[in-house]
Amino acid sequence: MTLDEILEEIKRAENIVILTHESPDGDAMGSSLAVKLMLRELNKQADVIIPEYHRMFNFLPSADEIQIDSDVEKYDLAISVDCGNFKRLARNEYFENAKKTIVIDHHGSNNMYGDLNYVNPASPACCEVLISMAEYFGIEITKEIGTCIMTGIITDTGGFRYSGITPDTFEYTAELIRVGVDIPDIYKRTMGTKTRANFELMKRIMNRMELLEDGKVSFTYMTSQDELEVNAEPGDHDGLVNIVKDIEGVQVAIFIRQKDNEDVYKVSLRSEDGINVSDICLLFGGGGHSRAAGALIKGTIDEVKEKLMKEIRKWMEL
Amino acid sequence: MTLDEILEEIKRAENIVILTHESPDGDAMGSSLAVKLMLRELNKQADVIIPEYHRMFNFLPSADEIQIDSDVEKYDLAISVDCGNFKRLARNEYFENAKKTIVIDHHGSNNMYGDLNYVNPASPACCEVLISMAEYFGIEITKEIGTCIMTGIITDTGGFRYSGITPDTFEYTAELIRVGVDIPDIYKRTMGTKTRANFELMKRIMNRMELLEDGKVSFTYMTSQDELEVNAEPGDHDGLVNIVKDIEGVQVAIFIRQKDNEDVYKVSLRSEDGINVSDICLLFGGGGHSRAAGALIKGTIDEVKEKLMKEIRKWMEL
Repeated sequence: MTLDEILEEIKRAENIVILTHESPDGDAMGSSLAVKLMLRELNKQADVIIPEYHRMFNFLPSADEIQIDSDVEKYDLAISVDCGNFKRLARNEYFENAKKTIVIDHHGSNNMYGDLNYVNPASPACCEVLISMAEYFGIEITKEIGTCIMTGIITDTGGFRYSGITPDTFEYTAELIRVGVDIPDIYKRTMGTKTRANFELMKRIMNRMELLEDGKVSFTYMTSQDELEVNAEPGDHDGLVNIVKDIEGVQVAIFIRQKDNEDVYKVSLRSEDGINVSDICLLFGGGGHSRAAGALIKGTIDEVKEKLMKEIRKWMEL
Repeated sequence: MTLDEILEEIKRAENIVILTHESPDGDAMGSSLAVKLMLRELNKQADVIIPEYHRMFNFLPSADEIQIDSDVEKYDLAISVDCGNFKRLARNEYFENAKKTIVIDHHGSNNMYGDLNYVNPASPACCEVLISMAEYFGIEITKEIGTCIMTGIITDTGGFRYSGITPDTFEYTAELIRVGVDIPDIYKRTMGTKTRANFELMKRIMNRMELLEDGKVSFTYMTSQDELEVNAEPGDHDGLVNIVKDIEGVQVAIFIRQKDNEDVYKVSLRSEDGINVSDICLLFGGGGHSRAAGALIKGTIDEVKEKLMKEIRKWMEL
């Protein structure tokens, strides 16, 4: 059983580092800190290394212990959470240099890049994978661990809204409320409150949105100049793609965001049933889930749009 | 026990009518149809009379049996759901003419206008009040009843986000999923998908939003002309107030909507902890919950804004 081997490695390790994907979202942040706190219950100290994250996550227990860097030679065990492949892992040199590596994840596209891999694609969030791990290891879920875990579940399910949530998700939530986890507070901090910059970006992408293919595809974009003008911080663009997805009749939503003032765009695709956007993103070297995926594509706004539309049209004809 | 008396009246009644508040939201719609279906389990037929509602609720079980009118002399029992006072009740002539009346609600401001009143202000939704009623009456919650109930819970808690939700809410949800209720589907139909008109209105109110009092108050408006221009249907403005509430630093959000091209505005106030907007709305003859309330105020946009700001400033100084 993988979990026995994972526990064995954790017990054996002297210096442990926890890593997650670039541009970490609530599930990445929550998973990283939940694992750190869970290891503490096993009397193991671990460093969480995350080079950059949105200040909205500062409320998470032990967020003040996150490091942006450390000594790359130091670790005998590296644990990656919520990250489907090595390339996307932030500070992956720590993973590369560690003697042993563990991958804990829920992405269906995970390519099992660790020595040990505990991946459950049926879980709506990596944080939900951690619940079964904690149960198996006999770790009591404290209010602090629970707060991290619920942050991942709430944000990755869009607030309990996406398919993949099960009765278990709701029962875990009930249990976590009973140990003191404050759901409305987490909701407000992570999904409820927009920064002013986020609000301004939202206005811009809405005003610019085009409906294509008889309203079946929505397209919008954001430039580096936009981010500069509204004083955006990392993460201020998070969730914007959903604004143009949740419109009657839209089957695929495209949101592209310019990278560093260059002719390169970070693409976010979202879809309703039927169109697998992970497959489309794979064509461009990206990946993700069937209904939420991303890639990096070179070109101007119009070129990137046309490249994507060419593939999306093929899928829509199927 | 009120519930025993309520059951007694239901059993005694020959002709039952179910009513709810004007501009019915998900909790009003869900409660009305859930009560109808629950009465069916008790072998009682009941009419639901709702003069106008948004087509997004057409997916609700038995929605096709909703009547816009009937014979006002016909009913010996009228049941009002999710409505705090008689004035707000749509088609309240049916309530007035019924021999017996029952009020089932969760509004703290409910003024107990029925012969029998079953009001639980601790419940986050009227639909959650119905769960305890069903349990007490020994009514099995079917997939259909559960779909109506979850619609009220999801919409009135903003998708499990507002305070007032308890572990019970999540456990009920887990149970309802097990009887076949499709949470993501309800979410998508009621909260996830915006109509195009709603999206256009959202753009307008965002572009117009002002931040007042050092960003502690947000203000925006919508005119009858707006609704005409975007082909809005009843309910297309629902939820817009939340767009201007969920901004960092905003303690009170004001959204005013012109009524029938006149100098009269429907006011929606939302607040964070501390400021009781129900009290402010009461001053103008309205009411609601402490964090979500409404009123009808005469004047131009600027006049209505100033009337409200005068009261809000008083509260902010407390």
